[in-house]
Amino acid sequence: MTNAEAVTVTNKQIIFPDYVTGFPKESDLKITTTTIDLRLPEGSTSVLVKNLYLSCDPYMRICMGKPDPLSSSLVPPYKTGVPIIGLGVSKVIDSGHPDYKKGDLLWGLVGWEEYSVITLTTYSHFKIEHTDVPLSYYTGLLGMPGMTAYAGFYEVCSPKKGETVFVSAASGAVGQLVGQFAKLMGCYVVGSAGSKEKTKFGFDDAFNYKEEKDFSAALKRYFPEGIDIYFENVGGKMLDAVLINMKLHGRVAVCGMISQYNLVDPEGVHNLPTILYKRIQLQGFGVCDFYDKYPKFLDFVLPYIREGKITYVEDIAEGFESGPSALLGLFEGKNVGKQLFVVARE
Amino acid sequence: MTNAEAVTVTNKQIIFPDYVTGFPKESDLKITTTTIDLRLPEGSTSVLVKNLYLSCDPYMRICMGKPDPLSSSLVPPYKTGVPIIGLGVSKVIDSGHPDYKKGDLLWGLVGWEEYSVITLTTYSHFKIEHTDVPLSYYTGLLGMPGMTAYAGFYEVCSPKKGETVFVSAASGAVGQLVGQFAKLMGCYVVGSAGSKEKTKFGFDDAFNYKEEKDFSAALKRYFPEGIDIYFENVGGKMLDAVLINMKLHGRVAVCGMISQYNLVDPEGVHNLPTILYKRIQLQGFGVCDFYDKYPKFLDFVLPYIREGKITYVEDIAEGFESGPSALLGLFEGKNVGKQLFVVARE
Repeated sequence: MTNAEAVTVTNKQIIFPDYVTGFPKESDLKITTTTIDLRLPEGSTSVLVKNLYLSCDPYMRICMGKPDPLSSSLVPPYKTGVPIIGLGVSKVIDSGHPDYKKGDLLWGLVGWEEYSVITLTTYSHFKIEHTDVPLSYYTGLLGMPGMTAYAGFYEVCSPKKGETVFVSAASGAVGQLVGQFAKLMGCYVVGSAGSKEKTKFGFDDAFNYKEEKDFSAALKRYFPEGIDIYFENVGGKMLDAVLINMKLHGRVAVCGMISQYNLVDPEGVHNLPTILYKRIQLQGFGVCDFYDKYPKFLDFVLPYIREGKITYVEDIAEGFESGPSALLGLFEGKNVGKQLFVVARE
Repeated sequence: MTNAEAVTVTNKQIIFPDYVTGFPKESDLKITTTTIDLRLPEGSTSVLVKNLYLSCDPYMRICMGKPDPLSSSLVPPYKTGVPIIGLGVSKVIDSGHPDYKKGDLLWGLVGWEEYSVITLTTYSHFKIEHTDVPLSYYTGLLGMPGMTAYAGFYEVCSPKKGETVFVSAASGAVGQLVGQFAKLMGCYVVGSAGSKEKTKFGFDDAFNYKEEKDFSAALKRYFPEGIDIYFENVGGKMLDAVLINMKLHGRVAVCGMISQYNLVDPEGVHNLPTILYKRIQLQGFGVCDFYDKYPKFLDFVLPYIREGKITYVEDIAEGFESGPSALLGLFEGKNVGKQLFVVARE
């Protein structure tokens, strides 16, 4: 292919103008239009993709904060003036990389734009081999959130049949799966979420935390004997209440703390002596440390999906322009299920 | 032996009058004198001992608080109106138990009194077989604190040669040993304690936390690359400062939180999101879960003691009446090394 055949098209982008303090607003993200050549330069080892589904995930708020050596141990801060980076499902338009050819589907890190040029690094992108399931699932159930739930529950929580499990943000991309995995294992599972409609995921029970004045009293209602496993997605006051309701030798998998990301100073958690009294384990984890298990995860989860034994609720916004509000909605708890938006269906 | 031969002697006791709120005072413990028959009744399976050394340990403050289902998961609350219970080194005067005979030495749970009648349960008492080391060591280095340091460091912290280790309350019964174990393993070790004189235990470095306005700045001075392992004995502000100085995949063994035991409400710890960012593990533990390893611990530690490769600093108060002030001194940080008091030398 020669340059004469290059095809230049418009490329809408969602730009990150500057670092955010407090709750992000729609004005913190700017939609612009540029152009892109749909052919890679000769000799390139990159892959040029068309983005189909883009994923909105709570961790992205961490990337929007001022660069900080602490949080950047988990996720790198965004660069200002360029598109924000997220996970997406994309179709290969041109490839200089031996593993990918035109027409292939992949999921992984892309810019929030219609077309992206991506550089492959270890576990940055995964080829999509199974297309008998909804493609959008690769932003959720079959992507990073699914792998997070799988690694967090099975590898970090050391669950046993009959144990009691509490999941916060239970209607979210990760929480709804953790609860289903726990049910499959024969655990008793209760979730919390921000509305009644969000609490229908086949758990044993659920509550709307916004209707509870005293989180600890709510937890005692559902766990009179205490909690063996807490899958932590929210942090702050909920963690404080959970700690004093944990059983002896309980385990807390710290997956996220969405209630803290928009605060300039994180809330104080007071009940830490309980970690000692109850010999509790708190384990922070990042899915980045577990991607070597992704093929094993697919082997595990695909049959359950095909048999209808695992379901997945998605909250799909339509159109590229819906991206900023879809993302910001996460921090107001607007989503019911995994939040994503459609850029193109093919 | 018949009742006619019974010998009745006086028995001084340190009584626990009532539950304590805030810092305990000497008036919270009352010394009384009663009498005791030095012969067990026929058919008894108990053991009657003369207490030689009684141990003052920070956990005892937890037992002095109002009964609370949380803390009593670790240690039972004291009963009011009777002698407080602690660990001691004792000599058998009479025994109805097949494992013990007159003249044997043991360590374990006894009342704070000159003579105690004890009931043996699993791991409540251990026969002292090695007497070529100071007997008082069985309240510290060779007793519960030693076993705590051993289990906490080797079993909970998963240490590796070359890692960086921070120990708080580094001159205490447990802390001084953790640091020495870490040095033996080839770790870099820094301790914190409440005075300069307390910080001489062969660690790589140490600081007096009372001279530091900013704990985090102090930690950055000693750990510019961060902390792999934190052996937590104090809680509160120090834990908060340590969290933001931990390395990726760091481990915190939560052994004690002495700064919190006298507070009505524990302090808030704000930097918990770091558990997520750095994928840190916090593991509360209690030595009670590890006593099956006590023989292995003795095999490990006795040669080091005999070769002078492990040393142990004790703070020994003289006489039964010194018990209350020795115990309370722990919470003001008065002790240099393992605090105990002598009731009798033989």
